[in-house]
Amino acid sequence: MKKFIYLDHAATTPVHPEVINEMLPYFTQKYGNPSSIYSIGREAHTSIENAREKIARILGASNSNEIIFTSGGTESDNLAIKGIAEAYKDKGKHIITSSIEHHAVMHTFEYLQKNGFEVTYLPVDKYGIVDIEQLKKYLRDDTTLVSVMTANNEAGTIEPIKDIGKLLKEKNIFFHTDAVQAAGSIPINVTDLSVSALSLSAHKFYGPKGIGALYLRRGVNVIPQNQGGAQERGKRAGTENTPGIIGMAKALELAYDENFEEKKQRIMNLRTKLIEGVLSSIDKSHLTGHPENRLPNNASFVFEYVEGESILLNLDLLGIAASSGSACTSGSLEPSHVLKAMGIPVEMAHGSLRMTLGTGTTEEDIDYVLEHLPAIIKKLRAMSPLNRG
Amino acid sequence: MKKFIYLDHAATTPVHPEVINEMLPYFTQKYGNPSSIYSIGREAHTSIENAREKIARILGASNSNEIIFTSGGTESDNLAIKGIAEAYKDKGKHIITSSIEHHAVMHTFEYLQKNGFEVTYLPVDKYGIVDIEQLKKYLRDDTTLVSVMTANNEAGTIEPIKDIGKLLKEKNIFFHTDAVQAAGSIPINVTDLSVSALSLSAHKFYGPKGIGALYLRRGVNVIPQNQGGAQERGKRAGTENTPGIIGMAKALELAYDENFEEKKQRIMNLRTKLIEGVLSSIDKSHLTGHPENRLPNNASFVFEYVEGESILLNLDLLGIAASSGSACTSGSLEPSHVLKAMGIPVEMAHGSLRMTLGTGTTEEDIDYVLEHLPAIIKKLRAMSPLNRG
Repeated sequence: MKKFIYLDHAATTPVHPEVINEMLPYFTQKYGNPSSIYSIGREAHTSIENAREKIARILGASNSNEIIFTSGGTESDNLAIKGIAEAYKDKGKHIITSSIEHHAVMHTFEYLQKNGFEVTYLPVDKYGIVDIEQLKKYLRDDTTLVSVMTANNEAGTIEPIKDIGKLLKEKNIFFHTDAVQAAGSIPINVTDLSVSALSLSAHKFYGPKGIGALYLRRGVNVIPQNQGGAQERGKRAGTENTPGIIGMAKALELAYDENFEEKKQRIMNLRTKLIEGVLSSIDKSHLTGHPENRLPNNASFVFEYVEGESILLNLDLLGIAASSGSACTSGSLEPSHVLKAMGIPVEMAHGSLRMTLGTGTTEEDIDYVLEHLPAIIKKLRAMSPLNRG
Repeated sequence: MKKFIYLDHAATTPVHPEVINEMLPYFTQKYGNPSSIYSIGREAHTSIENAREKIARILGASNSNEIIFTSGGTESDNLAIKGIAEAYKDKGKHIITSSIEHHAVMHTFEYLQKNGFEVTYLPVDKYGIVDIEQLKKYLRDDTTLVSVMTANNEAGTIEPIKDIGKLLKEKNIFFHTDAVQAAGSIPINVTDLSVSALSLSAHKFYGPKGIGALYLRRGVNVIPQNQGGAQERGKRAGTENTPGIIGMAKALELAYDENFEEKKQRIMNLRTKLIEGVLSSIDKSHLTGHPENRLPNNASFVFEYVEGESILLNLDLLGIAASSGSACTSGSLEPSHVLKAMGIPVEMAHGSLRMTLGTGTTEEDIDYVLEHLPAIIKKLRAMSPLNRG
């Protein structure tokens, strides 16, 4: 069998077999429309409400009504940001986000900017950490919403969400965080973080694609973004994706099971080995993101005088799946806005490589990467017209 | 085993076992993010494009680029209606729909009405058929979009979409049709129907929940409703739901396989037996919708002097799952806007019952319903304060 080492868990993850098992009966047996009043409809409804309670409990929400199911992280981000901004536009039209958000947040702010809102973008330091002092200066009487991601999807940097949450709670300003990349990897507690809204996507933590959730604190209004039926207490129309919802709850439960710390530590150790191995064996290589304060599974780099895409294609030939940044921007020739915001020069940002580990990653996988990556970089540099070194 | 007769296929359907089989590898093996450039990402991308081509071919689209995957019928309707209305608002802000649309269309028009658009609602006759002569009178120079459903989800009436499409094509006005209830039950050909946009939802034709599609004719612009990544050629952001997309294409293929006419005829014969049996054995019962020009699987009625919900609960006790109208409006005390638009008096509309047959429905099922339903109606009428008859 051809070797296959998957190191792009930040892009998506395989569905956990136990998650599939939980989902399966809802396709063919427990298929009732949850809005129906007969038995298999009520059963589906009950299963959904149980899943909602499970997710609410895991996230530390005070009530299961605070969980709204969506089709994924992008929809959750759109619903939170446009939903809150539009619901409170009479209070003010100034909104703030960071300069390193995922496109689902960044482009949503740009959309609002084109539609009458004023947007301020927070700078980050060289590690990608948002500047809270700067945030304090940006806040105005008409600021209604701030959105800062829990952890960055490219560089892996974990943001000071708790501090930002505390500040904004005092100021009575709504705070949304895109936790899509963080959920399942680091502990998430919405009460502890003082967030008004938090986005999740199941396929990032071994759940299925096509299902996400938005935590929305009780009392926070949103303008629904899809009109239709009264599902999700009027906040998100459309027949509920029962198997997806059941699968998402199970996946989140498995992610934060009693072995969470142990799994995290194991992945972190492998990740540290990978980072140290790369930096020590490859000249002119640099870690991107914060050296410690980063997602446990994220190892991201820039290599001078190489193209990220060429690295990826060469890794792929060896059976190694990795990324040069966000999966959503692959194919684009634009260098990453995240690396740019962190002050990394454009020509260096082109040589980015992100490897993100998962529960299936083994020490042999890391050894294999460390065995081959230096030669790939060396070969590419020898061929590269960029190599003036 | 407890008897179970499912007669609510208009609300949702069980997933076909062959559909599950097609989907399964995409959860655990072929799980790559379709935007990624390595092998399992490219494989997922190719599978999605094959599914898109399959759906385009079945619907008679000229190009697979005309198929946009969404999270379901509601999102497809929202994207088509808000997307087109907003994209062409400089051309005009008058839009038209019928008075018997699904909430996903009706509430979307109401949303636009609150946001600067002028909406005209088309009346229907007693069978629920939209009046084309009236439509001609309503058309104005600033009319940009008309949306009329292919077939009604409650009464089953099939609308004269082809004639409307021809008229609007001549007038150069965009035409959207919500084919969510019709797809899989009657032939659908977007070229034949001259539609600009057509909504589908997989779970209505033995596919999974949480996945839908919008056919959008080449050259028709939409303002995307979710901002984010560049998926679906920039028209719908969010990581693709690969298993859902694969499942949807397979389900549509199975629905329109070489046995389509035979399956349709079999269901129609059972449906006719059910309608005739009910009308002949139950006094003061009336068929709703058009007697011939209706979806092959739809048998819908109103019974005088009874409450629809009481009928459903009594049927449920006998293991029969049916509906009193749209699943999305169950639990609401409002009588159906569809029956109201058809001129059925409010007190009679409260006594509505919709039974929708499926591929698994047998003659025994129909016999069982015909054996028990008259007694249920009789019992309820005996108890009812409404019974002045």
